Amino acid sequence: MISTTIAALATARGLGALNVIRLSGPDALAIAQRLFATRSPWVPRKALLGRFNRADGSELDHGLATWFQGPASFTGEDVVEFGLHGAPYIAEEAMHSLLQAGATLALPGEFTQRAFAHGKLDLAQAEAVGDLIAAESRAGHELALKQLKGSVSRKLQDLRQQLTDFAGLIELELDFVDEDVEFAQRDQLLDVLQRITTECERMFASFRQGQAIREGIPLVLLGAPNAGKSTLLNRLLRDDRALVSAVPGTTRDSVEERFRLGPFAFRLIDTAGIRATHDEVEQMGIQRSWAKLREAHIAVILVDPMASTAREAHELVERVRQENPEAELLVVLTKRDLWPGQRMDGFPEHVELGPHEDDLAELESRLLATVNRAEPEGDVLIANTRHAEALRLSLEALGRVQEQLQAQASGELVAYDLREALRHLGSITGEITADDLLGSIFSSFCIGK
Amino acid sequence: MISTTIAALATARGLGALNVIRLSGPDALAIAQRLFATRSPWVPRKALLGRFNRADGSELDHGLATWFQGPASFTGEDVVEFGLHGAPYIAEEAMHSLLQAGATLALPGEFTQRAFAHGKLDLAQAEAVGDLIAAESRAGHELALKQLKGSVSRKLQDLRQQLTDFAGLIELELDFVDEDVEFAQRDQLLDVLQRITTECERMFASFRQGQAIREGIPLVLLGAPNAGKSTLLNRLLRDDRALVSAVPGTTRDSVEERFRLGPFAFRLIDTAGIRATHDEVEQMGIQRSWAKLREAHIAVILVDPMASTAREAHELVERVRQENPEAELLVVLTKRDLWPGQRMDGFPEHVELGPHEDDLAELESRLLATVNRAEPEGDVLIANTRHAEALRLSLEALGRVQEQLQAQASGELVAYDLREALRHLGSITGEITADDLLGSIFSSFCIGK
Repeated sequence: MISTTIAALATARGLGALNVIRLSGPDALAIAQRLFATRSPWVPRKALLGRFNRADGSELDHGLATWFQGPASFTGEDVVEFGLHGAPYIAEEAMHSLLQAGATLALPGEFTQRAFAHGKLDLAQAEAVGDLIAAESRAGHELALKQLKGSVSRKLQDLRQQLTDFAGLIELELDFVDEDVEFAQRDQLLDVLQRITTECERMFASFRQGQAIREGIPLVLLGAPNAGKSTLLNRLLRDDRALVSAVPGTTRDSVEERFRLGPFAFRLIDTAGIRATHDEVEQMGIQRSWAKLREAHIAVILVDPMASTAREAHELVERVRQENPEAELLVVLTKRDLWPGQRMDGFPEHVELGPHEDDLAELESRLLATVNRAEPEGDVLIANTRHAEALRLSLEALGRVQEQLQAQASGELVAYDLREALRHLGSITGEITADDLLGSIFSSFCIGK
Repeated sequence: MISTTIAALATARGLGALNVIRLSGPDALAIAQRLFATRSPWVPRKALLGRFNRADGSELDHGLATWFQGPASFTGEDVVEFGLHGAPYIAEEAMHSLLQAGATLALPGEFTQRAFAHGKLDLAQAEAVGDLIAAESRAGHELALKQLKGSVSRKLQDLRQQLTDFAGLIELELDFVDEDVEFAQRDQLLDVLQRITTECERMFASFRQGQAIREGIPLVLLGAPNAGKSTLLNRLLRDDRALVSAVPGTTRDSVEERFRLGPFAFRLIDTAGIRATHDEVEQMGIQRSWAKLREAHIAVILVDPMASTAREAHELVERVRQENPEAELLVVLTKRDLWPGQRMDGFPEHVELGPHEDDLAELESRLLATVNRAEPEGDVLIANTRHAEALRLSLEALGRVQEQLQAQASGELVAYDLREALRHLGSITGEITADDLLGSIFSSFCIGK
């Protein structure tokens, strides 16, 4: 039983017209009634006009208070939301007064954690709240919204049900051995197991795409010095597209160049060390840069056809393909204004880029087509490292189940690994959880969520 | 008649758990109903759970919407407030959808301006909304809250009433001239006028204190090099006290050192050029620095008694008193750890400062006592330059009324200047306004207010 009542500023810090402060817990209404004087009766979900007083009774502000009676609230507890004038000073004093009146300061993510504790959200949905707030692109936003609405949870529920049914079959098979039919049944069991494993694998594999959509599609710009890399970069990063990087409450720590194009956010991979021409590539041997190239889902290769030969361009493309066979490539011949009207037939398939806006628009539409090849529309995507790790562990356990079935191992051994697989799948939605896991998940949230 | 419906983000920009977007105008409910799908009926002041869709019908977020039916709303119009997940992406998309659905982007301060237009607030109260949000100290906050609640407006109402009554008397006096009694009545009229003038003068004079409380009490630290100025400054500015300076929507433009102590915010006046010792003061002659000293309400004079003589200290105090007779002075003898136990009898009345926290606490309490002398508790304070200017113009007109009464001028001339005085007083609360004035007042607000 949760006995404390938590309080936090729910809106972003800074100056605005309005701040919202949230209270949640068994004493939320009592604390609100002590500090917020209103002539209207406290009716659930009704925005009441009144006076917010400090704990000593002095007047702090005039504003609104709305009571959400548990369990029909975000957290499942009694919640009161105060809408006050957007002054940092007022927010600070109001929080101070709430703490004096008996509330405790909410930990990061504690409101969402309480929603989970009261069964309003499962763990995957709770994590999606954080992702939804941090989403910077339409694709990332949709991914988080789907997860919040339970797409991942339902898919996992379905997999767990199939595994549970399978465990029932195993029990029948192993407990009541009938020598004559056993072999055929083992084959059938292996078939069922294979189907489940394939679904898990598909879900695990979706992490590459899910992570790219959530955190930005990893993209690398390659080219010889003066091929036009920084010019293109600046055009891609212009005003409204560049995204602020250091977002608290997400897993992204480093500051990196990020931008948005169409529905996608992109994350630029810095591979300063990689050069375009034959000689320099051979010279540098900087493994770290090539290793980073391997993270890219998309490699944009810039070639200035006045400075590089078609052969050099083919060689660079070939080298990139060797290093990262999975990346989608887009070759761009730059500085078209310097070779007007010329056809560049010997070069790899490419798009041409000059200084005009139309050229950029053409490049962008080609880039978006490349993205759509790199990130085909997925059904249910996993976007969270914790989920991917749980699926991996689950797949390992399923692998052992398969081996044991093939080796005609005892029912106990098979059952042990099946439980292991179920446990890992269940940890994603929080059906099986440990306290320390909860702590580490919610601590990455910001206070007030 | 206002026909447009305005929309804006009402909460501060940045990541938080929650963003609030406000709609106000005749189509607020219709636009909200088009974008926000809910199963509950739209009842005034009820927080409805639902789905916020983009204008194209695609789902954007799940959240709350509350309809405030005009005229019982902040602006006096129909208002809808949406509480959405605190993602910048969601705020951006929601605003875009509202504009597509027929809303227009609110100008800075436009919500408050509409509240004024619909008679929910007078102009002085509307300005207090901005001050309330920008207030950084308890004293500044209380000043704005009082003004928002109408203290300034009521005082002005009272003065205007007195002036109107006086105008009635003048009319009687001048229209029905009776030679025998006239002279006595003129004296009485002049008495009444003097009373009103005195009240206006008192209000005008309160601007010095009101401005100090609103914008920070102007304080200067003076002392010879090495007297301990920057050490004290750093101690006063430590962590929780330093205030961020560049606050949008207020009149403070320059970045300056600001800190909070007790209920007050302080604004440090930079007078780098002023030196403490006799010789250097004479050398420098930097008039600009002395001019700035004249802005100070409090001058803290630091003296290192191991490096300066008592006579030099007295001379510095005298010089400061000459330059700024109105400033309250506080003399601090620094580096007490270097002269333990010694009594500094020849020096001006002072407080002693050493490196211990207790010493600082003692200094602070003496500083607060000095502040209370510098800013005695006022009744109704004027804190706004526009108000002070209107009072000044009003006082000028009252002066002309007095001269004309004394000179037995014609009723028309007296009436003209009386109207002038009334007009200037009325401009403070907006009973008499010009559109360009409104524009300049509300443009200093931020969008969403």
